[in-house]
Amino acid sequence: MVIVSRNNPLVKEFSSLKEKKYRKQRGAFLAEGGKMVREAVQKGMRVLRLAVREDYVGETFSLPVTVFGEDAFRAVCDEKTPQGIVAEIEIPVYELRPPRSSCLLLDGVSDPANMGAIVRSANAAGYRELYCIDCADPFSPKSVRASMSGVFSVRIMQGNREEVLSVLSGVPLLAADMSGENIFHFQPPEIFALCIGNEGNGLSREVRERASKTVCIPMEGDAESLNAAVSASVAMYLLKRKHFERS
Amino acid sequence: MVIVSRNNPLVKEFSSLKEKKYRKQRGAFLAEGGKMVREAVQKGMRVLRLAVREDYVGETFSLPVTVFGEDAFRAVCDEKTPQGIVAEIEIPVYELRPPRSSCLLLDGVSDPANMGAIVRSANAAGYRELYCIDCADPFSPKSVRASMSGVFSVRIMQGNREEVLSVLSGVPLLAADMSGENIFHFQPPEIFALCIGNEGNGLSREVRERASKTVCIPMEGDAESLNAAVSASVAMYLLKRKHFERS
Repeated sequence: MVIVSRNNPLVKEFSSLKEKKYRKQRGAFLAEGGKMVREAVQKGMRVLRLAVREDYVGETFSLPVTVFGEDAFRAVCDEKTPQGIVAEIEIPVYELRPPRSSCLLLDGVSDPANMGAIVRSANAAGYRELYCIDCADPFSPKSVRASMSGVFSVRIMQGNREEVLSVLSGVPLLAADMSGENIFHFQPPEIFALCIGNEGNGLSREVRERASKTVCIPMEGDAESLNAAVSASVAMYLLKRKHFERS
Repeated sequence: MVIVSRNNPLVKEFSSLKEKKYRKQRGAFLAEGGKMVREAVQKGMRVLRLAVREDYVGETFSLPVTVFGEDAFRAVCDEKTPQGIVAEIEIPVYELRPPRSSCLLLDGVSDPANMGAIVRSANAAGYRELYCIDCADPFSPKSVRASMSGVFSVRIMQGNREEVLSVLSGVPLLAADMSGENIFHFQPPEIFALCIGNEGNGLSREVRERASKTVCIPMEGDAESLNAAVSASVAMYLLKRKHFERS
């Protein structure tokens, strides 16, 4: 059976997951496109069900499938040019615990595309534990898409500022801030938490005060700042340069 | 006089610059917000005229000003939450010539936000000459905004593949590509052109064939790629690490 009407309750069930409120309520999020869905399955995510457009011919991984007509499917998707398959996936909930290797603390990152790009880079640079305080939802469609399946690999932990700072109490915090020391001159400890703040306002006072070191990415001439995802990524790679020089 | 109607020809004159066709025709682009306009003036851009919302109270730099009512001003702007001032600026046209220091060659970068973020990072990392082949227009509102005024500082040169490769003939090309050598192991020459390709398809065959070296940013675990602006920026900083270690 093909669902053609946008008013069908199943359209609503899927599309409501574009909103944070319903993602929270149902503990699920959406991932779009064949590659994303395949990776979600391969990486052991709990994929609950699929929505496909009636012309979809790819794999369905023995999962429950609902078939939508073009117009109804468009309502289910967030992408402008949908690929024909969307998965509803259970949001992985990880308990807050101290990191096992160098990690990332995001303190107020508010742009979904930045959030996703940071998750993507964190996965690539080997920062597999990510602590979020007051951030854009990493499970929004835009952020999931920008993470390029990084969201399936990185352990994303969320908590309030006190809780997060408490589980990180044994780990040196490195604050990324314009006022800091040139990151190229700095030798990081074996394990650390790199702290990245809000796009406009930087790190919160609490995180700045708890930081054992503040580092900055040097800039030439009249430049004042870098994009938040860019500066997080440059800092992640530079702080692990000894590791990557050996590898 | 306050222009209130969206149908006023002056609304059309400003708003048409959101489209590449009219930017090209008139050799002008838009920059929004007080900070951007001030920097354009300070950096010696030819700011032709301003559009302001009737409640705007900031500086107008002795420039011709048109005042718009809220609705008409919204039509002139590209931002969702306009700040009340937009400038029409002459597009700086730089003739193609060989670079004087290390530079960037963008070969098919197609996303306007990536383009802007790369310009922003290039300015910060001291790559002041940028060669574009088949790229998103760096003067689109989205790209200008993402460049955070970097577009006023970097010398952006555009040309077809042959022309650009010809002016770069005396400079070693470093291709950024997954297949390359770990960039942490590579000692770059004094002057080079870092080549960044299309988000999905990478560098063109011509540029790959002309490259004297191919480098990659190493990735851990199951990660397959980085965002284009992120990988361009990480590579720009890593290739100049000797410089930044000394500074």
